[in-house]
Amino acid sequence: MENYVILKAKMAKESSSEIAKMDTNSKNLMLLKMSEGLENSLDIIIEENKKDVFKAKEKGFSSALIDRLTLNEKRIKEMANGLRKIAQLDDPIGKTVSAWTRPNGLQIQQVRVPLGVIGIIYEARPNVTSDAAGLCIKSGNAVILKGGSEAINSNKIIVDVLRQSLEKNGFNKEFIQFIDVTDREAVKMLMKLNEYIDVLIPRGGEGLIKFVVENSTVPVIETGVGNCHIYVDSSADFEMAENIIINAKVQRPGVCNAAESLLVNEDIASEFLPVICKKLIDMGVEVRGCEKTRQIINDVIQATEEDFKTEFLDLIISVKVVEGIDEAIKHINRYGTKHSESIITKDYFNANKFLREVDAAAVYANASTRFTDGFEFGFGAEIGISTQKMHARGPMGLEALTSVKYVVYGEGQIRE
Amino acid sequence: MENYVILKAKMAKESSSEIAKMDTNSKNLMLLKMSEGLENSLDIIIEENKKDVFKAKEKGFSSALIDRLTLNEKRIKEMANGLRKIAQLDDPIGKTVSAWTRPNGLQIQQVRVPLGVIGIIYEARPNVTSDAAGLCIKSGNAVILKGGSEAINSNKIIVDVLRQSLEKNGFNKEFIQFIDVTDREAVKMLMKLNEYIDVLIPRGGEGLIKFVVENSTVPVIETGVGNCHIYVDSSADFEMAENIIINAKVQRPGVCNAAESLLVNEDIASEFLPVICKKLIDMGVEVRGCEKTRQIINDVIQATEEDFKTEFLDLIISVKVVEGIDEAIKHINRYGTKHSESIITKDYFNANKFLREVDAAAVYANASTRFTDGFEFGFGAEIGISTQKMHARGPMGLEALTSVKYVVYGEGQIRE
Repeated sequence: MENYVILKAKMAKESSSEIAKMDTNSKNLMLLKMSEGLENSLDIIIEENKKDVFKAKEKGFSSALIDRLTLNEKRIKEMANGLRKIAQLDDPIGKTVSAWTRPNGLQIQQVRVPLGVIGIIYEARPNVTSDAAGLCIKSGNAVILKGGSEAINSNKIIVDVLRQSLEKNGFNKEFIQFIDVTDREAVKMLMKLNEYIDVLIPRGGEGLIKFVVENSTVPVIETGVGNCHIYVDSSADFEMAENIIINAKVQRPGVCNAAESLLVNEDIASEFLPVICKKLIDMGVEVRGCEKTRQIINDVIQATEEDFKTEFLDLIISVKVVEGIDEAIKHINRYGTKHSESIITKDYFNANKFLREVDAAAVYANASTRFTDGFEFGFGAEIGISTQKMHARGPMGLEALTSVKYVVYGEGQIRE
Repeated sequence: MENYVILKAKMAKESSSEIAKMDTNSKNLMLLKMSEGLENSLDIIIEENKKDVFKAKEKGFSSALIDRLTLNEKRIKEMANGLRKIAQLDDPIGKTVSAWTRPNGLQIQQVRVPLGVIGIIYEARPNVTSDAAGLCIKSGNAVILKGGSEAINSNKIIVDVLRQSLEKNGFNKEFIQFIDVTDREAVKMLMKLNEYIDVLIPRGGEGLIKFVVENSTVPVIETGVGNCHIYVDSSADFEMAENIIINAKVQRPGVCNAAESLLVNEDIASEFLPVICKKLIDMGVEVRGCEKTRQIINDVIQATEEDFKTEFLDLIISVKVVEGIDEAIKHINRYGTKHSESIITKDYFNANKFLREVDAAAVYANASTRFTDGFEFGFGAEIGISTQKMHARGPMGLEALTSVKYVVYGEGQIRE
């Protein structure tokens, strides 16, 4: 298997210099041909997908997971449309980030270039296969895809279709590589191939991400885990606070930008908490409160230290009464995962303080944490949400899949 | 020792939120006080440094290493001036990188913020201690310094002086941490402290950098190794080519942006090689040539495959005759370390092709590779030269020590 993984990585590396220098028109044409390919292969994709769904049901997977896994005509067409939309986005490659002339006449330009080879390690969703391939191609990168075992048949057929679409139209199919082995040994190998892979992006649960961060010698972009807070300041507009909390907790609880924890200023706790907690509970949310919360509302479960650390990804919320903004910021910087954090306040200085001092990829005043998303931010795409500080932070669009180089125009300059 | 290293990292992390929010005036004042401190401690620094120099001589270290290690009044004053110059640089923190308003009225700003805690792992030069501390402080980061054993006494006293200068003037001395243990076990521990350290920057030889890249779970910025090439195209101005090759090879052979390999177009090889090789040999450079080179100049050593891979850091150059620009680019992308590469040519299309297709942090047309440097690029500072593609690439100034965050101003927006 080692040779197999190395071979795939090598082919990606070799093809990467070719795609790196392709112009925008050619890359867009590839994307359009890939999208046509998907639409012309609905039947066979659905057939292969059924095998994965059958196995998942046999294994008794949750209905949510089975739903994520299932492909139908509509979803495959959405994948195809996704590729068309990527074709419409601006090409980041070749853009001049900055340019200046030195006193000795050297003209220096900092120009955007592809990263080279990007490895994407993901779990159950087969649509990630075409999405990730599309974004890597548009940004001039070769890609190595390693999906989860649950979706192996779906991923294989999607990759086959995409590669054939390239080949049939005279493009190099090796730009897209797929690791057709589902165990973690294959991931382990990828993580050591610094010679061939420029960056790894794990997309999935906390376990997968931790495994990659801890074992990879290839640079990693850490994505996703979001233990997001909403802090309701004493001056908050209660109605606004309620709307935002409900949106952030209930609208889609299984995603990383959903709120997991509510912090409430003690000055308003006895007035605000009964209202919001009733609403949350009525909507099926389990409330786990601190001691002070439970003094105000008797029938909520005691929140443990562990609860405050947990990304529930479910209809559960931890609640803590805090003395004021300083305790709120301290709590968030301690328990948060540096993803998305929001303050609800009318106070100018407290809004500024929160936005400045909370250490997270995205900090909000008076808005839902659910907006941390490449599409909602207007990037037109998203390869994941970075929760690390190096390279890219927050929602990652095409630019996160690029590097820069310095291009220097001289006329014989030497260094004194 | 483990507890000791963790304690230092913890103290850095705790202090990092304080320095992150300090304004530019306060950070500059710290730098000025640190520089005064160094100038007021000349005698004791020189005394402690003598211990290191004595030990190095005893161990029979090379005169070059002993020179790098030695501190005198002039060099300490240069360190102090270095801190003053950092105080004069623009503060990158708080700068708005970009800002836009979404259709729903959300105002999004991408703002520069500190990385948090930066670990610098370096070797013999004690001046790195004050330099690195100064750059980290200016960019709002806490720093953990881990110097080489050769300079342990010098580094200790410099750190003591810097920390005391902070404390005496009412600042938190914990912004600067020093690991007072010289073996690699301490480095190994630092490399696993993802909870407390945001990025590690190894500065030193290939062995150190490889060790950190292969073992760190903390994100690393890979620096330094430069197997740099100069390609002389058939249309090159010979005099310009000679000047640039001599500058890049001879002016300072021990640095990463010095040239290590010369590629010459076969159309001009028999005319150009005898002239340049004679000049290089006269200046004490050992020439190791390919078969074709040796057919033109008999008395040069045969270059091995290994030679073409080697960063000599010495008065040695490998020479290869190539068929044309395509072979030159292929050779560079295969043997280079993606640092600095230069083409000497009068041909417009070949210059463009080389600048576009060579994969390196800095690519030059008609200039010496020696310009890849934070000061020469006009950044006013340099923490190292990144040879990786993630985060920062090429000479790193203050901006490379920062991250970004998204600050989002809402008025009650929730996601549909």
